[in-house]
Amino acid sequence: MEQSAAIIGGGVIGGGWAARFLLNGWNVRVFDPDPDAERKIGEVLDNARRSLPGLGNVALPAEGQLSFHDTIAEAVEGADWIQESVPERLDLKQKVYAELQAHCAPDAVIGSSTSGFKPSQLQDGRENPGQIVVAHPFNPVYLLPLVELVTTGANPAGVIDRAKEIISAIGMYPLHLKKEIDAHVADRFLEAVWREALWLVKDGIATTEEIDNAIRYGFGIRWAQMGLFETYRVAGGEAGMKHFMAQFGPALQWPWTKLMDVPQFTDELVDLIAGQSDAQSGQYSIRELERHRDDNLVGMMRALGNNDWGAGALQNARDLNREGEAGLVRSIDEIEDLSQPVLTQSRVVPLDWTDYNGHMTESRYLDAFAQSTDRLMMIIGCDADYIANGGSYFTAETHIRHIDEVHAGDPIQVRTRVIMGAGKKMHLWHEMFSGERLLATGEHMLLHVDLATRRSAPPAPHIEANLAKLAEAHAALPAPEGLGRAIGAPR
Amino acid sequence: MEQSAAIIGGGVIGGGWAARFLLNGWNVRVFDPDPDAERKIGEVLDNARRSLPGLGNVALPAEGQLSFHDTIAEAVEGADWIQESVPERLDLKQKVYAELQAHCAPDAVIGSSTSGFKPSQLQDGRENPGQIVVAHPFNPVYLLPLVELVTTGANPAGVIDRAKEIISAIGMYPLHLKKEIDAHVADRFLEAVWREALWLVKDGIATTEEIDNAIRYGFGIRWAQMGLFETYRVAGGEAGMKHFMAQFGPALQWPWTKLMDVPQFTDELVDLIAGQSDAQSGQYSIRELERHRDDNLVGMMRALGNNDWGAGALQNARDLNREGEAGLVRSIDEIEDLSQPVLTQSRVVPLDWTDYNGHMTESRYLDAFAQSTDRLMMIIGCDADYIANGGSYFTAETHIRHIDEVHAGDPIQVRTRVIMGAGKKMHLWHEMFSGERLLATGEHMLLHVDLATRRSAPPAPHIEANLAKLAEAHAALPAPEGLGRAIGAPR
Repeated sequence: MEQSAAIIGGGVIGGGWAARFLLNGWNVRVFDPDPDAERKIGEVLDNARRSLPGLGNVALPAEGQLSFHDTIAEAVEGADWIQESVPERLDLKQKVYAELQAHCAPDAVIGSSTSGFKPSQLQDGRENPGQIVVAHPFNPVYLLPLVELVTTGANPAGVIDRAKEIISAIGMYPLHLKKEIDAHVADRFLEAVWREALWLVKDGIATTEEIDNAIRYGFGIRWAQMGLFETYRVAGGEAGMKHFMAQFGPALQWPWTKLMDVPQFTDELVDLIAGQSDAQSGQYSIRELERHRDDNLVGMMRALGNNDWGAGALQNARDLNREGEAGLVRSIDEIEDLSQPVLTQSRVVPLDWTDYNGHMTESRYLDAFAQSTDRLMMIIGCDADYIANGGSYFTAETHIRHIDEVHAGDPIQVRTRVIMGAGKKMHLWHEMFSGERLLATGEHMLLHVDLATRRSAPPAPHIEANLAKLAEAHAALPAPEGLGRAIGAPR
Repeated sequence: MEQSAAIIGGGVIGGGWAARFLLNGWNVRVFDPDPDAERKIGEVLDNARRSLPGLGNVALPAEGQLSFHDTIAEAVEGADWIQESVPERLDLKQKVYAELQAHCAPDAVIGSSTSGFKPSQLQDGRENPGQIVVAHPFNPVYLLPLVELVTTGANPAGVIDRAKEIISAIGMYPLHLKKEIDAHVADRFLEAVWREALWLVKDGIATTEEIDNAIRYGFGIRWAQMGLFETYRVAGGEAGMKHFMAQFGPALQWPWTKLMDVPQFTDELVDLIAGQSDAQSGQYSIRELERHRDDNLVGMMRALGNNDWGAGALQNARDLNREGEAGLVRSIDEIEDLSQPVLTQSRVVPLDWTDYNGHMTESRYLDAFAQSTDRLMMIIGCDADYIANGGSYFTAETHIRHIDEVHAGDPIQVRTRVIMGAGKKMHLWHEMFSGERLLATGEHMLLHVDLATRRSAPPAPHIEANLAKLAEAHAALPAPEGLGRAIGAPR
């Protein structure tokens, strides 16, 4: 069934909503008097199209239709959901609501992106207040799942259910607040941190960059996976949430923030929080929570490492420093004994490389071999600079044999032989070990390519010469067991 | 050169420091009068050993030696770094410092894990105040890089440099504060959020779980990669940080948090912050920052998805709901036409599957094929329940041919044929398409295993029967081009 959403007010937030609905198969009808609205929403959509459809592991529906309209009356025609994201002025919003309700279907849900106003303020004076809710999203709306759904007694249960259903249907998470409050919930935290941060900058304690680093190298990563209370529950250990609170209760009276109007730290409050925390996380032991936390932190920091960003960039810099001591080289001239296979990797199996069978998952064997291929490329001169100048190797074929299992925390090393390196071709043989134990072999045929034409092309002469040198030196070794084998062929 | 650290006070924080030093090759000497100290530190070390060594892509040094000592005098013998993590009572800390300094080397650095006390309070009354600094870490200390390094005028430049150097050498990030202040920087934010959260729970606005979800489904994920200011810089768009601040300035007077003692919102403050933000992030355009942010958010949310946690678990639930509409089945009985290859994957290439060559990286072809193998296993009855009961298939061999490139945002589908399925063996053939375009083929030989013995063993009869049914139906199709080929063999 085709569904449509009217987006009232474009910009970054309205554009994000438009992308959410559109990429989840809804038709989207935009009203925004800004002559640049179409361009601006187009820019948000470009970002959303590159990131949202690949977020999950299953394809989204076909995109809906996007249209722009000159009047609110036209935009809301047939809309099942109307999302208002106009500037944060109550008089303006109230004028918009009056016009929306003059034209929209009485059973459409009208959600407001407001971060500051309460739903009762938006419903005030309206003939059909029951269709108006606050649906407050977070930027980038096309990626972050949180929507604060704030309602009042004027909203019938059916409207609230429908709002939750639609928010979920576009891949978001409706957090339905029990009561309305200024700035809802999440923005109260953001505002408290913002005000505290302004003090720190003003008083010369830290710069904006230092404050950002204090967040993203520490509690920010924790908060991406557990919030405040579950994190503190883990910190409290087996003694539990009450113990944690008893430890930190006195600090409420100390000037650890400018927020000095604190609640009374009573037994009732401690019991309330400890009880809610049990209901939230009591199904896990502290040890289990610690391991979930660590799995998440490692996975996220490694994801950041792939982008060379934040805590992941710190780790990459550290890896670079460690290479020499780990026996890894960056150039053929650093290899002491050319006659032996080249050490192209020395690492420990990361937590995020294992699977439901409890061992390193098959694709990470290829991940490791591919990283070894990258190092071999670097060693023969096909490094980041060379690649930036338009040459590289693409893998054409891979043959992996899995010989033994390996688990998270185990050390692995890869040693690499050049079987053949001539013209456009590079034929490599990787062997992966944990100590003396052979885990897997990888046989790879690569072709040198011109990155401009995406076609095979000869490498630069120094690369061909280095490759030939290694191939010649390795030719004296006995042929590896399993080379050139097809799948299912007898050993 | 061997280096050693003395850990004064075990527990979660002291244990985390011990793990950091030990796993980075330092000898660690622990003093903690708690009779359970050895067990407690052992538990932290277990967690650290499974997570930290695999965090990076290069092996860490060999572990140092861990020893426990009955006196402070013995523990600090030969220590280059002494880390104090005793309970947060100033009188106790001052007593410990007096004893430390009676025995330690005068050029050792003494770091305190205190979250509340200022370094001047710890240095007060000491004969050698210059060797005492605050080095405040974040739990889990073995994974999170942030250390707030707080010093006073009493600390010589040499001590500060040495502290930074050692903190960096164990893979952490020294954030050196310009001035000392109660609770340093990060904990001021944590304390502000904690106090605000207590109000919200007390006033019945949200439960601990709702507050945690408000954090981890929204701004928490953002803060794992950009902090407060860089995030707002992006939100402000091309108009810049001044524009963002002009928009949100007035809110400082509004009751959006209980933190009402706000700084004066002057032009000077706006200029100071805008200037610092330019210095911090000015090398990127807003568009570039948006894309870095989105790359990071997608990578982290997908990492959480692998652990079925937080925002990643939300996405997994959504994927499950989408399967039917995307044409994916979960059982052989749902397959409409057995004679055709089975659709085992329909997705879009995620941002984190691409590499420096700008296309889907080779190991993600195997990741996709492995996911298709998992679905084929599920379809024949080797599902999560069956695996939990001790049977599974392990891949023995893989042969991949890369035929065409594909990029982030492109749709891909995998269709799977059973070439042979009998006894312990399962021989699969995957073809990956983007639309009509053949991207790659994957040929895989798997063996059914008994997960208890880790040896090959026959599958349950229903699995063998389902496999035979598919193999028989697919046998009528023409043999796939490239089946049974070895690397380097002519086509």
